Amino acid sequence: MPVSNKVRLSMEQGGWIRRMFETGNALKAQYGEDKVFDLSLGNPVVEPPPEFHQELLRLAENPIKGMHRYMPNNGYQETRQAVADGLKSESGIPFSAGDIVMTCGAAAALNVVLKTILDPAEEVIILSPYFVEYGFYIDNHGGTAVVAPTDREFQPDFEAIEAAITPRTRGIIINSPNNPSGAVYPAECLKALGELLRQKQAQHGSEIFIISDEPYRRIIYDGLTCPQVFPHYENTIVCNSHAKDLALPGERIGYIAVNPAYSHRDELLNGLTFCNRTLGFVNAPALMQHVVRALQGVSVDVADYQRKRDYLYARLTDMGYSLIKPQGAFYLFPEAPGGDDVAFVEALQQWNVLAVPGRGFGTPGYFRLSYCLEDSVLEGAMDGLARALRQFGA
Amino acid sequence: MPVSNKVRLSMEQGGWIRRMFETGNALKAQYGEDKVFDLSLGNPVVEPPPEFHQELLRLAENPIKGMHRYMPNNGYQETRQAVADGLKSESGIPFSAGDIVMTCGAAAALNVVLKTILDPAEEVIILSPYFVEYGFYIDNHGGTAVVAPTDREFQPDFEAIEAAITPRTRGIIINSPNNPSGAVYPAECLKALGELLRQKQAQHGSEIFIISDEPYRRIIYDGLTCPQVFPHYENTIVCNSHAKDLALPGERIGYIAVNPAYSHRDELLNGLTFCNRTLGFVNAPALMQHVVRALQGVSVDVADYQRKRDYLYARLTDMGYSLIKPQGAFYLFPEAPGGDDVAFVEALQQWNVLAVPGRGFGTPGYFRLSYCLEDSVLEGAMDGLARALRQFGA
Repeated sequence: MPVSNKVRLSMEQGGWIRRMFETGNALKAQYGEDKVFDLSLGNPVVEPPPEFHQELLRLAENPIKGMHRYMPNNGYQETRQAVADGLKSESGIPFSAGDIVMTCGAAAALNVVLKTILDPAEEVIILSPYFVEYGFYIDNHGGTAVVAPTDREFQPDFEAIEAAITPRTRGIIINSPNNPSGAVYPAECLKALGELLRQKQAQHGSEIFIISDEPYRRIIYDGLTCPQVFPHYENTIVCNSHAKDLALPGERIGYIAVNPAYSHRDELLNGLTFCNRTLGFVNAPALMQHVVRALQGVSVDVADYQRKRDYLYARLTDMGYSLIKPQGAFYLFPEAPGGDDVAFVEALQQWNVLAVPGRGFGTPGYFRLSYCLEDSVLEGAMDGLARALRQFGA
Repeated sequence: MPVSNKVRLSMEQGGWIRRMFETGNALKAQYGEDKVFDLSLGNPVVEPPPEFHQELLRLAENPIKGMHRYMPNNGYQETRQAVADGLKSESGIPFSAGDIVMTCGAAAALNVVLKTILDPAEEVIILSPYFVEYGFYIDNHGGTAVVAPTDREFQPDFEAIEAAITPRTRGIIINSPNNPSGAVYPAECLKALGELLRQKQAQHGSEIFIISDEPYRRIIYDGLTCPQVFPHYENTIVCNSHAKDLALPGERIGYIAVNPAYSHRDELLNGLTFCNRTLGFVNAPALMQHVVRALQGVSVDVADYQRKRDYLYARLTDMGYSLIKPQGAFYLFPEAPGGDDVAFVEALQQWNVLAVPGRGFGTPGYFRLSYCLEDSVLEGAMDGLARALRQFGA
């Protein structure tokens, strides 16, 4: 009675994730925090870069009159200009402040985009393994999620995507670098996706957006840079966040960027601004908008993440796990020994190691390990990972 | 094509508000900012109290490790405890941290509550004149807004409310001190509302929430304090914000408080936390949660607002306007001379005075003037207000 049927059902379906979480808490209470190795969370332990602290201190010492008031619902002109300048220098595309809407993080950005574009019964394609919240976001605004699996290396499978497209397809959410697989989509892949979608739009007389969720854009290794989607497809909307690149996940600061080449740019941006307001976000937090304006070129130390990836990948490979070496984000997504991801994750818990089963991302048979953690936690998990693997006879 | 039919329609229906806004911008561009007297906005010009700046500076100078990371989706335990302690000392009701969910302001709080409780086709009663966004918030989550007009003094009309209640009624949103009327609901009124709703719940076998939107709770005059709804009705959910009491509207920091006497407290709070996450708010901004923890007893200078109210009320009354003297918030809601609120607001524009017609709040025939503004703006508007009144022959 207190909550709607749909919310109750969603909470029950997520019940085993909650059970895992509660098991983890129980283990920590029983054995002590330092005896439980929690690789289940994507909550970075790194601190924001020094430039962030300097800028915050500068503003706290020299408050600007009116700096905590309402501003236009799409954000401060100066901040949107700084974001546009950053995108312009990175992509060569002439972004202006008018192409940007500042948001309460990427989760807000995705909800605002979906609210703005979805008519009833329209479909949005997501690629498995996917960030589990996408399903809720699409459903919030009356859309239907259609899942297209990726290939063995977690790259887009164009046959699967083509099969998933119908006349009701309104968008496809992509996420590179990917949570949970760490996969990075190369430029050729984005080009091929753009070509497929243009062809399908022509076939169905429809308009299909690429909604590119890019919070891990700067968390990328091996000297790579993350290719931009914009040059490859006009109808592109990017959702971004400073949760990972500036290590500010709790502050809820991010943005939407619309391709300047999109043909109905003004109407879309007016709609995004309207929905940012009416969904109750109203505007991105004012102080953080002031802070990140000066930090568009700044990132946390990615070399440290790469070192952690290399350590964890090498150790798991040596033990005999089967996994892809990812080039971005801060997760590994190995095959679950024995094939049953929930059983394997439960076995890991016996050794006080916490991980997330692949079915939490729409891909049973795998499990996710996060490495945005202290080295001691990663090292402490090795024994349990080795024992659980032997237990499943791999 | 770029935006959904519903969003397009909503934006078109709000078209005349946008036209007024654009007219105002055009006037400012033509005559200069200081020649246009904009009483249309509720964006306080007062700065946050000194305690806020001190606390922000203290945190910027002494950052706590991990203070910008994710925390539980309902917020920091310490901040929820501080909010609970404040409510407890104010109401005598034994609130605990578990009764609180920190949110991205009151607009987020209302959306989270409505998402959590509404099944399809359920109804939510709103009292006209009402904050125009309520309609969007209810519709976002599949509900239907049912309007019950208030009486001549903008107090709840219990016959109208009773007539509006059906077996599908899931809640009633109240807002005292009220935007736009400034009305404050006395304890007897809340008691009577609680009795009516209990009777109607029994009659229909339903559960009806009071959703009390209280951002203006501390903006109250004449030595009054704002009565709490909690003692008068078990099924009460309060949505609050520090936008007005700490003058932080741009920072998006507020909370939901559930009555400890509510019978399904745990399930409701789990649902609220779940919806805070899945609607994309994720959590209230971390830094502001740290800051407001220490400021639960602090407010802006309400005496200054009272002085502005007294000035504006006296001047309008002297001129011959017909209006109620409100005891809270920072708006006056006079009758529109001639009866046509849009025509009258357009006449005010001729004299470079900007106001909002009452139909923007579901109550044609009135207009809203905001006074959370510099004295010079209020004084500058007097001439135009006098001339427009004469023009309509009152």
